[in-house]
Amino acid sequence: MSSLSESKNNFDPCRVAIVGLGTVGGGVAEVLWHHGKADDNAVQLAGILEKNQENPNLPIWAQRDQNLLYSSLEELLADPSIQVVVETIGGQTFARELITKILESGRDVVTANKDLMAVHGEELLALAEKNGRQLLFEASVTGAIPVVRLLQDYFHVDDIEKVSGIFNGTSNYILTEMEQKQISFEVALRQAQDLGFAEADPTNDIAGYDARYKLVILTYLITGVWLAPEQITLEGIEHLEPADFAYASRLDRRIKLIGHLKREDQNLQAFVLPLMVPRGGAMAEIGGSTNIVSIEGKFSEEISMVGKGAGSLPTASALVADLEKISKGCISKNRSSTMQFRLQPFEEYIFRHTLRITVKDQPGIVGQIGQVLAEHEINIYALEQLPQYHQKDGSHPVIFTITLEACQEALLKKALEKINKADYLLQPISVLREIA
Amino acid sequence: MSSLSESKNNFDPCRVAIVGLGTVGGGVAEVLWHHGKADDNAVQLAGILEKNQENPNLPIWAQRDQNLLYSSLEELLADPSIQVVVETIGGQTFARELITKILESGRDVVTANKDLMAVHGEELLALAEKNGRQLLFEASVTGAIPVVRLLQDYFHVDDIEKVSGIFNGTSNYILTEMEQKQISFEVALRQAQDLGFAEADPTNDIAGYDARYKLVILTYLITGVWLAPEQITLEGIEHLEPADFAYASRLDRRIKLIGHLKREDQNLQAFVLPLMVPRGGAMAEIGGSTNIVSIEGKFSEEISMVGKGAGSLPTASALVADLEKISKGCISKNRSSTMQFRLQPFEEYIFRHTLRITVKDQPGIVGQIGQVLAEHEINIYALEQLPQYHQKDGSHPVIFTITLEACQEALLKKALEKINKADYLLQPISVLREIA
Repeated sequence: MSSLSESKNNFDPCRVAIVGLGTVGGGVAEVLWHHGKADDNAVQLAGILEKNQENPNLPIWAQRDQNLLYSSLEELLADPSIQVVVETIGGQTFARELITKILESGRDVVTANKDLMAVHGEELLALAEKNGRQLLFEASVTGAIPVVRLLQDYFHVDDIEKVSGIFNGTSNYILTEMEQKQISFEVALRQAQDLGFAEADPTNDIAGYDARYKLVILTYLITGVWLAPEQITLEGIEHLEPADFAYASRLDRRIKLIGHLKREDQNLQAFVLPLMVPRGGAMAEIGGSTNIVSIEGKFSEEISMVGKGAGSLPTASALVADLEKISKGCISKNRSSTMQFRLQPFEEYIFRHTLRITVKDQPGIVGQIGQVLAEHEINIYALEQLPQYHQKDGSHPVIFTITLEACQEALLKKALEKINKADYLLQPISVLREIA
Repeated sequence: MSSLSESKNNFDPCRVAIVGLGTVGGGVAEVLWHHGKADDNAVQLAGILEKNQENPNLPIWAQRDQNLLYSSLEELLADPSIQVVVETIGGQTFARELITKILESGRDVVTANKDLMAVHGEELLALAEKNGRQLLFEASVTGAIPVVRLLQDYFHVDDIEKVSGIFNGTSNYILTEMEQKQISFEVALRQAQDLGFAEADPTNDIAGYDARYKLVILTYLITGVWLAPEQITLEGIEHLEPADFAYASRLDRRIKLIGHLKREDQNLQAFVLPLMVPRGGAMAEIGGSTNIVSIEGKFSEEISMVGKGAGSLPTASALVADLEKISKGCISKNRSSTMQFRLQPFEEYIFRHTLRITVKDQPGIVGQIGQVLAEHEINIYALEQLPQYHQKDGSHPVIFTITLEACQEALLKKALEKINKADYLLQPISVLREIA
């Protein structure tokens, strides 16, 4: 075996500071420290903004090296040798201010902050460009899966027509547990919290906000257009019940929280919804806290990427990959669009809907619902009532499902408005969708 | 919706010529023609080396534009405006000469030629470096799946410990058909040839040479070391029988032709082998002509990529992504290694082996085999004889399997040398492996 003749590094390592030493920031310190030992090392940890020297995420070697520690941003920015700053403090207000100051000071920034990028990305990227600096954000979307890099630098030559996937590990973990153990949402959530997979306030993950932030960023990378998060139709997973999984299973489906962007000419379709997905397909079989991103291009066809979407070291490795990119002097051209896109109203979307219907046990209900659907020219595809949800004594609700042939949201909405008025319903009809 | 302020292209498009107008070269012409309409177009088709103007892969618009056509390499190289050449003629001898001439003429080269890169990559990359030029080869490994780019530019910061996957679509198609339709290798191969998935001489795909070339390239990208293809243990799929799939199914396994590279400190483990893989895992569920590449890094954990590994447009899109990279002036540092790696001899590898044993139907055989295994201290994990392979009249062979507990290749080899001498065997024992 022979090794290639070495090409010498003819530049000094790029000097990097970390601001925010939580689990991700601590991970960056660890990866950089490890990376610093490589003979082709191009990135060097040169500073950590951390007032608390007892911070458990502060590596021991950093505690020993007092030159590494800065106690304020002003002190850090006063050091002309720091070239790039990694922002891992999170949140929007302070991080936005911080990144603004760093870019204006003539330094590049690398961030994992998805909320910030989704809401203020347009402003911050414009500021970076104005200052001739780079703002990289690979780690903000699905951790170590390099989808940002690929959309910026690789699939740029292709016409990307669709991106979809499972962008949130916490909710995917809960869905997987609910299905496999036939437990309620509340039990699965508590279990995820006990294991540290879900936060004390889990809203961001389970209501789909986190996945939607990521979809905003992906939409920008594909179209050059920044949507406001609120423009994207969103539904979380909190309302799902064991019955949904039991009936999905009868249809050979699983339930996944899917982020979806589709471009057809100038029409954009974007949503984050719990969907039924056919078993055996990649989307259905990604369980636990794993993420998947699937990209469809005109020429490259479908490419799917599967990996850890979160976690200290996977996220840190994405941040360090961005640092290395800056150290090489490669500049990604941000996607710009002269096209005017039209975000299709959700009511125009076509799905195959499965209605979960919870009623008092009395005769004639299926007939009445069937009639309203027929009035709206909606055809029934399948109807199922599993015995375990049918209690003879009448004290318990009967839960059954009707799966409809594909129809437009607007049409279903009209029919549901009528059906939901019926007094035999014990709760409003719950709708699960599948891409038609 | 607003769009980002446009950043102007402040350089002229990069002028590209295509040499070799087969299906892939024709695909490149099509993608470049489509790409040429983009407002941020950075690559321009400026020449095609094609003597035969009746070539069906020559697009109509190219036939009309006589300025595009060159009839000899000399003529092409005499045009100083051509900056980059795409080589899609394939083969080794002529392509090597051609790329040498192009690099020496001061031009960059983009190629899809896996055989050439696997065998002469070291020499050609050194030549490119000497001439200050780039030689990019994304399309040489698994088509549109961007594994070369990611290993060069993204996972570079991580310690990649393992890469494995299904690198050949033709053999994966045949294995999928053999399993699903319970047909013989010969029937599945003929079917693949009829459908155009396999070539008239399918050796390269079914004997594993194609997958091994790709593993040589991946090994270089991860370690900086060029192995000779012959150094990598290889077994094709031609010897597999329907019984193998039937017994694998009883163990809840599928059979896949897997390329595998693992690095542990300075030890390298490399092979291309048909392996049993557990159902439900990503490797097992990739069917048909689809490819998968799985990368395991110290920090990023496991990232898998799934997509079309071949085909005119997917391969062309990878070539054009390389062209766009050159047009941006980004230079990938080739991985260089100062470490001395040791390629572990195959006999040191540990697998769980399943033996397919074809014998005359007579009593005592299992006992005799069991005794030889015991003498070698090899434990039996499972033993199975399915009734459909057991013919009572004695005119048909009995096929049964013994699955062993994980042991070293060397140990099994010794035991098999002894067992294979027995006269009750109708054919030598066939071994299927699984990663322990």
